[in-house]
Amino acid sequence: MPVYSISHVENVRVCVVMVGLPARGKSLIAQKIVRYLSWLSIKSKCFNVGTYRRDLQKAADIGNITADFFDPNNPDGMHFRRQAIDLALQDMMNWFLDENGVVGILDATNSTRDRRNRIVKVLRENLIEPIFLESFCNDQDLVLQNILDVKTTSPDYVGSDLQFATEDFLKRIELYEKNYETMDVSIDANLTFIKLVNVNSQIILNRIESYLESRIVYYVMNLHIKPRSIYLSRHGESEYNLTGQIGGDSNLSERGWRYAKKLPELVLKSLGEENKHTNLTVWTSTLARTQQTSSFLPYKRKLQWKALDELDAGECDGMTYEEIENQFPEDFKARDDNKYEYRYRGGESYRDIVIRLEPIIMELERQENILIITHQAVLRCLYAYFMNVPQEESPWMSIPLHTLIKLEPRAYHTVVSRIKADIPAVSTYKEKGTSQLGEQNNSTSSKSRDIINNSDIVP
Amino acid sequence: MPVYSISHVENVRVCVVMVGLPARGKSLIAQKIVRYLSWLSIKSKCFNVGTYRRDLQKAADIGNITADFFDPNNPDGMHFRRQAIDLALQDMMNWFLDENGVVGILDATNSTRDRRNRIVKVLRENLIEPIFLESFCNDQDLVLQNILDVKTTSPDYVGSDLQFATEDFLKRIELYEKNYETMDVSIDANLTFIKLVNVNSQIILNRIESYLESRIVYYVMNLHIKPRSIYLSRHGESEYNLTGQIGGDSNLSERGWRYAKKLPELVLKSLGEENKHTNLTVWTSTLARTQQTSSFLPYKRKLQWKALDELDAGECDGMTYEEIENQFPEDFKARDDNKYEYRYRGGESYRDIVIRLEPIIMELERQENILIITHQAVLRCLYAYFMNVPQEESPWMSIPLHTLIKLEPRAYHTVVSRIKADIPAVSTYKEKGTSQLGEQNNSTSSKSRDIINNSDIVP
Repeated sequence: MPVYSISHVENVRVCVVMVGLPARGKSLIAQKIVRYLSWLSIKSKCFNVGTYRRDLQKAADIGNITADFFDPNNPDGMHFRRQAIDLALQDMMNWFLDENGVVGILDATNSTRDRRNRIVKVLRENLIEPIFLESFCNDQDLVLQNILDVKTTSPDYVGSDLQFATEDFLKRIELYEKNYETMDVSIDANLTFIKLVNVNSQIILNRIESYLESRIVYYVMNLHIKPRSIYLSRHGESEYNLTGQIGGDSNLSERGWRYAKKLPELVLKSLGEENKHTNLTVWTSTLARTQQTSSFLPYKRKLQWKALDELDAGECDGMTYEEIENQFPEDFKARDDNKYEYRYRGGESYRDIVIRLEPIIMELERQENILIITHQAVLRCLYAYFMNVPQEESPWMSIPLHTLIKLEPRAYHTVVSRIKADIPAVSTYKEKGTSQLGEQNNSTSSKSRDIINNSDIVP
Repeated sequence: MPVYSISHVENVRVCVVMVGLPARGKSLIAQKIVRYLSWLSIKSKCFNVGTYRRDLQKAADIGNITADFFDPNNPDGMHFRRQAIDLALQDMMNWFLDENGVVGILDATNSTRDRRNRIVKVLRENLIEPIFLESFCNDQDLVLQNILDVKTTSPDYVGSDLQFATEDFLKRIELYEKNYETMDVSIDANLTFIKLVNVNSQIILNRIESYLESRIVYYVMNLHIKPRSIYLSRHGESEYNLTGQIGGDSNLSERGWRYAKKLPELVLKSLGEENKHTNLTVWTSTLARTQQTSSFLPYKRKLQWKALDELDAGECDGMTYEEIENQFPEDFKARDDNKYEYRYRGGESYRDIVIRLEPIIMELERQENILIITHQAVLRCLYAYFMNVPQEESPWMSIPLHTLIKLEPRAYHTVVSRIKADIPAVSTYKEKGTSQLGEQNNSTSSKSRDIINNSDIVP
């Protein structure tokens, strides 16, 4: 009997059909939903019709195209675009069938009622529930900002200059506008839809009924597009880290306190001169070592979350890996075999952490600049959410002590910087199949994926 | 530094201003929101303007009134109604100030824009954020159903016959309809509002920005009005119950197994002959004793939730109360002094349970007929939500073993029945100030609030 959770869905297959003119942030929303649902173990995939259209062009040996391709009166363009959507739908149906997909997202403009009706027909024939998600935007500043952020780096404009790309893209939008039919509470009263007006200053929900639908709505409702940084850090080295024990509620070691004292400086350095007065919110767990680590930070808003506490090791709390291997050899092996699912006797698994972190993620999406000081397993799960790390990998990621991680979410990727404090600490990284912890962070022979440079931008 | 949670709100004071014609379920929604937020420790109170109006009538020695009182052209009626809203608002402002209120709900029709503008003015002068919550309903069947369910038992119609009350009430609604101005996305674009159309088949959200607003939206979005029963039971008596130990993951005792075997019969008996084929969803925790208790139930949909696991007693897991009193006398006393807030060393408090139950409550609001088999502390928290039990009382409630509790939510109250299995079990009820467990359930000398009758309806 599987453990039920917020991520549990039964016999439901849903297709989120995006709707909206170009440059309305559809792909961004689509990708965030896929990332969120995947993190919750709900199998999801985005099918971007533009990619199919470009593949068709390539196969037909057509080079870069301009706005007239998107003129509804251009038969060649229409032909390619129809073929592209058919291929995308076909692939999605196969994915539902072959890979037990749960939420497919059809990322295209789908801007006419005729097009949407045809999609509904295909979905219903395949017993898939359609939900329309429209991003409607009549705030020209938002549209232009989006064009500058994203569209001029679109594969359709590789090699084009910025001004040409912007102008051509605006022309393309104009052509779509001719036939655009927005979702309407009267005409589309029988469809399930979410209509976002100017990001989410207004939201219209029609016939949202299932649990999964309501989760998607709540997630989308909490998204914002203001630029911000998310800082993540483990607590400083603790007394238990020194003795190799897991769990507990020990204090910082002498080197751990040094990290705590240096943390304000690391944050300031990363913020840079022009942002040095940025006010961060600080979240810690309820355990002493994270609060001690936060104690020298000059920010007023410091909050404790029980949900940020370390993975509960149950009966193994306070033991070393060697002791666990000796006392519970079968459990020790089982955990190595499937670290994400393994639940300590009377304790938790990584999956359990994800479930309890779900409200944190929701709140985190609402926050602006924030610094989270937490624990190895919890930080792995948070990092996996932002960086889209698969579940089988996330429990094995190396997140060394005394290192500040900065995440800057962008439209289609997150910029990661790791700032090392240059204060030695033990490695708490245990490789699969051993009960030995890694070497010290500062040793270059460490096999774990520690970042050695002081600051390293990973796109 | 307080523990942050979903219930944490800072320097926010909000007034939810209900909007809608009579018989649109406004009071029901208002009261559910107050119950939900109070359970989350967010200080909330509903101010029903009808009650103020009736008090004024009483003071002026005016007896029962009829529909013409609500005619906008009746100066006497208008006078009373204006005075009533002013008094309600005044009381609310005092409550925000004197009792540090966070969410006040103004429960009235507030059906004209003029009235709403005057309310906004008062709120803004007092630095309170207004959110409008409109229940718009043009489905006449729903309206009539609501009138029959609730309004004919309204204090305005005490002593009137049903037909007169219904007709008079419909006339009252008609008078309100004359001047009714619904919330509009263009005209009211600058206001924060939630508009529910026909319960929640359509929802319009405008300028929902704060965390608290988004929580209220998500809660309201998940409500339904279908009749249903919620069954709650503790697991059968466990081996740890016999030895007086807390926590752990022990198996059922012989008597516990007898309860498990009898449970299907108790449920059937409570469902009654005409509903005997009702399909229940069964939720258990991840611990053996709840799953064993569910094992003879004939329902297919059985789900495990980690969030339903018993309160984590941390270092005291597996100990008896006497052992805890001896080993940690100060903790033992601290827990008795404030059982809701006391967190076991390395474990949880009742408040922590409420936080982890929050997604369960949300999901529970969506469910129809359901049976939940869980543990003493968790069941107390669930029961407190449905029955609006204050936090200082809920950890002291007696929820005996081998007793099935049935909750039937109605418009303004919940009907509770307790069905005893008539299988002896130890009492796990510990009175304040002692480390002794209670006597056996079947003993009539038990001081705890065990229900002795086989079935007992508590309004």
